[in-house]
Amino acid sequence: MASGSSSVTLDEALARLSTLNESIVAYHERLDFNNDAFFLISMSIIIFMMQFGFAFLEAGCVRSKNTTNILIKNLLDSCIASIAYFFCGWAFAYGTRANPFCGFGQFLMIGLEPAQFPRWFFQFTFTAAASTIVSGAVAERCEFIAYLVYSTLISGFVYPVITHWVWDQSGWLANGPEGIQFKDFAGSGVVHLHGGTTALIAAIILGPRIGRFPDKKTGTPAVPIKGHSTPFVAMGAFMLMFGFFAFNGGSQGTLGRPGDGETVARAVSNTMLCSGWAAITVLLINKLLVGKKWSMLLSINAALAGMVSACSGCDALEPWACSVVGIGSGICYFSLSILVEKVRIDDPVDAIAVHFGGGLWGVIIAPIMMHEGIIYTGSRRAFLQWGWNLVGAAAIFGWSFLVMGTIFLILRITGFFRVPRDVELKGLDIYKHGEDAYPQIAYGHGWDKEEPSEDYFSNSTHSSYVRHRTGNGSPNGYANGGVAIKLNGSPHESDQMRGEHVHVWTHRNGQLADRDTYSAPSLRLHGERPENVHHARRRMYNSNLVQPENYYSRHPGWYNYEKDSRHMLHL
Amino acid sequence: MASGSSSVTLDEALARLSTLNESIVAYHERLDFNNDAFFLISMSIIIFMMQFGFAFLEAGCVRSKNTTNILIKNLLDSCIASIAYFFCGWAFAYGTRANPFCGFGQFLMIGLEPAQFPRWFFQFTFTAAASTIVSGAVAERCEFIAYLVYSTLISGFVYPVITHWVWDQSGWLANGPEGIQFKDFAGSGVVHLHGGTTALIAAIILGPRIGRFPDKKTGTPAVPIKGHSTPFVAMGAFMLMFGFFAFNGGSQGTLGRPGDGETVARAVSNTMLCSGWAAITVLLINKLLVGKKWSMLLSINAALAGMVSACSGCDALEPWACSVVGIGSGICYFSLSILVEKVRIDDPVDAIAVHFGGGLWGVIIAPIMMHEGIIYTGSRRAFLQWGWNLVGAAAIFGWSFLVMGTIFLILRITGFFRVPRDVELKGLDIYKHGEDAYPQIAYGHGWDKEEPSEDYFSNSTHSSYVRHRTGNGSPNGYANGGVAIKLNGSPHESDQMRGEHVHVWTHRNGQLADRDTYSAPSLRLHGERPENVHHARRRMYNSNLVQPENYYSRHPGWYNYEKDSRHMLHL
Amino acid sequence: MASGSSSVTLDEALARLSTLNESIVAYHERLDFNNDAFFLISMSIIIFMMQFGFAFLEAGCVRSKNTTNILIKNLLDSCIASIAYFFCGWAFAYGTRANPFCGFGQFLMIGLEPAQFPRWFFQFTFTAAASTIVSGAVAERCEFIAYLVYSTLISGFVYPVITHWVWDQSGWLANGPEGIQFKDFAGSGVVHLHGGTTALIAAIILGPRIGRFPDKKTGTPAVPIKGHSTPFVAMGAFMLMFGFFAFNGGSQGTLGRPGDGETVARAVSNTMLCSGWAAITVLLINKLLVGKKWSMLLSINAALAGMVSACSGCDALEPWACSVVGIGSGICYFSLSILVEKVRIDDPVDAIAVHFGGGLWGVIIAPIMMHEGIIYTGSRRAFLQWGWNLVGAAAIFGWSFLVMGTIFLILRITGFFRVPRDVELKGLDIYKHGEDAYPQIAYGHGWDKEEPSEDYFSNSTHSSYVRHRTGNGSPNGYANGGVAIKLNGSPHESDQMRGEHVHVWTHRNGQLADRDTYSAPSLRLHGERPENVHHARRRMYNSNLVQPENYYSRHPGWYNYEKDSRHMLHL
Repeated sequence: MASGSSSVTLDEALARLSTLNESIVAYHERLDFNNDAFFLISMSIIIFMMQFGFAFLEAGCVRSKNTTNILIKNLLDSCIASIAYFFCGWAFAYGTRANPFCGFGQFLMIGLEPAQFPRWFFQFTFTAAASTIVSGAVAERCEFIAYLVYSTLISGFVYPVITHWVWDQSGWLANGPEGIQFKDFAGSGVVHLHGGTTALIAAIILGPRIGRFPDKKTGTPAVPIKGHSTPFVAMGAFMLMFGFFAFNGGSQGTLGRPGDGETVARAVSNTMLCSGWAAITVLLINKLLVGKKWSMLLSINAALAGMVSACSGCDALEPWACSVVGIGSGICYFSLSILVEKVRIDDPVDAIAVHFGGGLWGVIIAPIMMHEGIIYTGSRRAFLQWGWNLVGAAAIFGWSFLVMGTIFLILRITGFFRVPRDVELKGLDIYKHGEDAYPQIAYGHGWDKEEPSEDYFSNSTHSSYVRHRTGNGSPNGYANGGVAIKLNGSPHESDQMRGEHVHVWTHRNGQLADRDTYSAPSLRLHGERPENVHHARRRMYNSNLVQPENYYSRHPGWYNYEKDSRHMLHL
Repeated sequence: MASGSSSVTLDEALARLSTLNESIVAYHERLDFNNDAFFLISMSIIIFMMQFGFAFLEAGCVRSKNTTNILIKNLLDSCIASIAYFFCGWAFAYGTRANPFCGFGQFLMIGLEPAQFPRWFFQFTFTAAASTIVSGAVAERCEFIAYLVYSTLISGFVYPVITHWVWDQSGWLANGPEGIQFKDFAGSGVVHLHGGTTALIAAIILGPRIGRFPDKKTGTPAVPIKGHSTPFVAMGAFMLMFGFFAFNGGSQGTLGRPGDGETVARAVSNTMLCSGWAAITVLLINKLLVGKKWSMLLSINAALAGMVSACSGCDALEPWACSVVGIGSGICYFSLSILVEKVRIDDPVDAIAVHFGGGLWGVIIAPIMMHEGIIYTGSRRAFLQWGWNLVGAAAIFGWSFLVMGTIFLILRITGFFRVPRDVELKGLDIYKHGEDAYPQIAYGHGWDKEEPSEDYFSNSTHSSYVRHRTGNGSPNGYANGGVAIKLNGSPHESDQMRGEHVHVWTHRNGQLADRDTYSAPSLRLHGERPENVHHARRRMYNSNLVQPENYYSRHPGWYNYEKDSRHMLHL
Repeated sequence: MASGSSSVTLDEALARLSTLNESIVAYHERLDFNNDAFFLISMSIIIFMMQFGFAFLEAGCVRSKNTTNILIKNLLDSCIASIAYFFCGWAFAYGTRANPFCGFGQFLMIGLEPAQFPRWFFQFTFTAAASTIVSGAVAERCEFIAYLVYSTLISGFVYPVITHWVWDQSGWLANGPEGIQFKDFAGSGVVHLHGGTTALIAAIILGPRIGRFPDKKTGTPAVPIKGHSTPFVAMGAFMLMFGFFAFNGGSQGTLGRPGDGETVARAVSNTMLCSGWAAITVLLINKLLVGKKWSMLLSINAALAGMVSACSGCDALEPWACSVVGIGSGICYFSLSILVEKVRIDDPVDAIAVHFGGGLWGVIIAPIMMHEGIIYTGSRRAFLQWGWNLVGAAAIFGWSFLVMGTIFLILRITGFFRVPRDVELKGLDIYKHGEDAYPQIAYGHGWDKEEPSEDYFSNSTHSSYVRHRTGNGSPNGYANGGVAIKLNGSPHESDQMRGEHVHVWTHRNGQLADRDTYSAPSLRLHGERPENVHHARRRMYNSNLVQPENYYSRHPGWYNYEKDSRHMLHL
């Protein structure tokens, strides 16, 4: 296409122009497609981290005995959602043979054009997020089988149908009266109201955790139940905020159209503002009026509720208007959180207040505050938009409540919904998963001090840990043979026998740290290897020849045997 | 615009060419804008995670009793910064009616064109990062109110003014003599020297934590204070590095201009190299010369200092030159860290050494090592650049020191700066926030072993935990009635009464695990439900009928009552 | 270039067209370059977080005493890799004077065009990931010096050479018979088979951890060894999945060519699907056939193995085909995991099964299942492709095995490979790094209850903690002077002396919580400041005047002195 000489005719020049034009159009199409793909994929990868966020927000809110249980649920959510969305989720949401209620076609992604892959992955990350919400509300008592069932159903059918209503061009909520569309940019309703409703009905049918509320029948008062790790909650919150920016910004879907860049930026800025206002609002209300403390957990949930509320209209709100939405979102969350507890629904992670409260508020307030909305225009169309959003909210609530409620009821009736009482009391991790979160035998170290000097180390040898005594009464022996467990330092001079008891003095740094008495001193240790001590000790313990009544009994709940032996050998 | 026939005239052809040209220009403008927006937003979202990074770096460096306190500060930083930047931060930084000292206008983002939204969000993430630095240096003793005040002021005024000086075209540091601009690509000076200076003056005015240094007046020696979680520090470090790549790479600001892609890549590559060299330098110096250990915490801080130093010139340094900057950065950090401790400034997270040291070094060294810098050209202009950077560094230091110093002094004088001595000793989490990081009652599980066999589980029932004895001396009874808390297995045969004491034998796996003596055996347990035991036990405890002097008293600090009851009921 | 009038000639018009064309071509080149750079950099930054992922996956799998050790290794991996790749890694991989075996040139990045910087950074993140794999397999026993050596060699030479073979156009595996190229899109073979092989040979030469397997010689049985934090494993898994999306998606390398967007989307979608299927497969196999539990740790490793297997062909597989790959990957991982343990190779994090198993499966299966592969075409060329992949897998295995095996053998023979037995038993953190993961002195808080009421707090003062008694027998004194450590509340009336013992009653909330007896009551406390108590207490302890045999000795392993004093002073 290099510049020609004057020998070319006008027709040839026009042909060149036309060729150039076509090549530019083709290039632009390709460019826009690739840019859009990159945009969607990079946002999706970030949205995926909401799984991390939910996982640790919820893990921090449960007791340590149920930590693995909640983590595996959040981890498998993305696995199950990917498979369910692959099988039929996409088909019901965006399959080509669509009707107003649901899509149909492209099951198993067969027949799905590669050009749709970016959208598939983007929608999958939304699906995984939607199906994750409920796990927090049923935490610490829900059967694993029940989780597998509801998670598959949500990501394979219930949620995709809602997305079809709103985000597919053939969906009935996308085709309201007078061309009005349900206004829900990033899913305040589609994702969060749905998830929150499901969490609500699940928590109701499942019932509260044992001890969460006073039991009127037995007169048992409530016992305090707290999450085991506040830092995990904060970690989850940061990660959810990270994901939410992509969730709301990425919902623009494309990057090449005029205004796309502005809208994405507006969405993320509004998301942050809405979140910030909600958090500060609840922080201050709680400090000044209710809890009298600067509560981080409430602030975190408020921040998340703010982001949930921002979903619906963050593309179309002025920053000041989104600030108002945020303040309202905080109030909604806080009120609902108190109400849920008042009516004795047990929601360990406040998922109902965050997602149901924040989501519903977002769906309701967006048509009021947004550009072209009620406060800007006060037009009939604006009110119609508002009405349609109320219709949509009711539909999403009804659908989620009825379908998921039916499923949960079936699970409950068939006895698959809740773990046995014993398992709940003792914790799900070990019985269900065989993996406790923090195995005691994996903790502790063998150093005398936390930072021993080099020379300390070079002087300590295993042979000094255990001394055998065969003499009688003297510092170097026992009458009947015995065992002195000594840690670094010579044995105390007053080591001696009394009656039939062996006293074991434990020293640390040359100072007496412990003195134990064993009642049947007929056992000798012959090896000096730690393993031998370990097993000799175990034999002593098992044989009942020596009753380590003082030593071991002092740590009945905290130290298990391995823990203890660690101490004895090389603390 | 399809190709025409020969019937078109040359003029028509030219018109078509012109139209095509215009459409292409329009398309390119839109494309460049959208690409820039996407670039800025995606980098911003990653930069936002520096909040996560700071939060956990700092949380790991404090004691567990102050963990929630430091986390909420880092969490609220972004909330407060978003609101303050919305209200006035942007206005003072980049508001349209600008003068050399500060911007003015577009308060509440009113009048801010949507095209500026990407930049607003990008600058907001920088602001949030800047205001976070100081919280580490004042950790474990700063009042929450003081935090709210200084955080708002930094993000709403003090930091935005500095950004105006350097990064707004009307700023005085951006308009130096002979057209020289203060060289600070990503904020070694603007962000980190400012933050480090603020941390320094805050730590000086606030004073060290109780026990951190020997007290000459009372002769009290220092007590060791360590951070409670090394893994959290590492976690924060990874996340900060993640954010730093976007921080330094994103500072290019655009993506469409020639060389943008190269510069972004150069910036991130240099950031990594600078960080790597700094970390390895400090690792080796400390191992060989100072601490004699392979210190992770020092390496982490050195890696971060390296990234801080890279900010100023990472766009304009050759990799080998940036390696030199990194080595110097490590040495600067390490020296300053030792010096700060020597002069008895207490900086729990080494924020001063990292940000002040690394930032100042970056501002000083960049004009020397960079392209067009002193070592390449040795020109008058290069020296002038260097001088202007020194002027800028002095200005940023002076501004931060004076303004923030004044604020901190006022806070100190009015008594709002430091928590009461009692609260500091006991920890801020519970008193200030009502939320301890790791509630004891949330820990432990109810399984006998960490991995019980199936048959174990099926055999254990609650009814086996508690047996009532009414007989005397026999394995099945006590003389005066008593309580045997038994965990899985038949009670030991030697259970018996001595005098007025009840002995409670606790078994685990059929072996004696604990033997307790109660002095007033007049209490019976009648229920077999865990709740009943729990409350009977509580009654025993409260009534003083039974003095659980041995049992409970052995865990005075570590086990609280709930913990203990957990053990008793279903360990 | 505005539209001209009719006065222009056709030649002028053609010149304009040509100019436009050239400017468009130039713009497109610049745009594509910048877009590609942005794509590579943003993917690289996300890939970098695989360091976070590996770090915490591995940290969760080791015991707490080796946590810092594993974290610093993962942290330094990126530092060392950046320096080694800067010095010579890139040179051996992609240096300009290349031969089929390796590249050569551009050492120290000198002579590397800026246009190559995005690729340099992208390749660096791969290198860092590759060198990290082995650290998990040698965890808890590998010398730090050995780590420094092997990590430098892998990232500076061994891994870059393999990348040259496959991904440089002059590499011998990229130039197979009949123009066939080794099919390995994102490194199932290049990264993971290499890393897994290195992990295998390292674990073999290093030998298992003490106690991991029964010792036939001494008859010592195996002791249970568990990782100390299941949540950390989950955290690492999420972060690795995050990174893997960018790892596999980013391997497309460019964004501007036709189909790039589709391929990236296909790669990430397939990666997720492959991972999901592998995880669910292993979850079910283990539940139904082997372990009888819903294992999270196995599911996590299976999910990662699925992502590893997806690397090779995720750009060229249909989703259903990738599902098959995923199921196979899960089975491969699970079988190999069992086999590795059977043959008594100790791999604390299952790195061999994940990376060797998953990687080898990926290399073998991709040419069968992919477009143009054996099942689609059954052609000679497809079989040739398969054969070439087998050749490549053998070459990568042989190279990694021999070179790294030699290095590990030399390290072993010279005694630099494994820490001394003592250090292994006691843990590496304190001896090697001086930084334990969870310093005991940093834990606990000083509040009586976890949520004290306001009035409780306002009533407690330090002066109430310690009372001096000078009287005799009465509630207010001791015969010989003594010390009552009292926490909140009046001392119990029965405080008294018996013989030469001082009884110390500790109260909590007005109830007796502890009673201690000191044998030599000749010490007085004169101060009421906590520090004084602290030091008086320490003096008592040190002087042996008072034998705190009961009090201190009850917490020999768990409470250190500082911990205890914390309790005593302000629990």
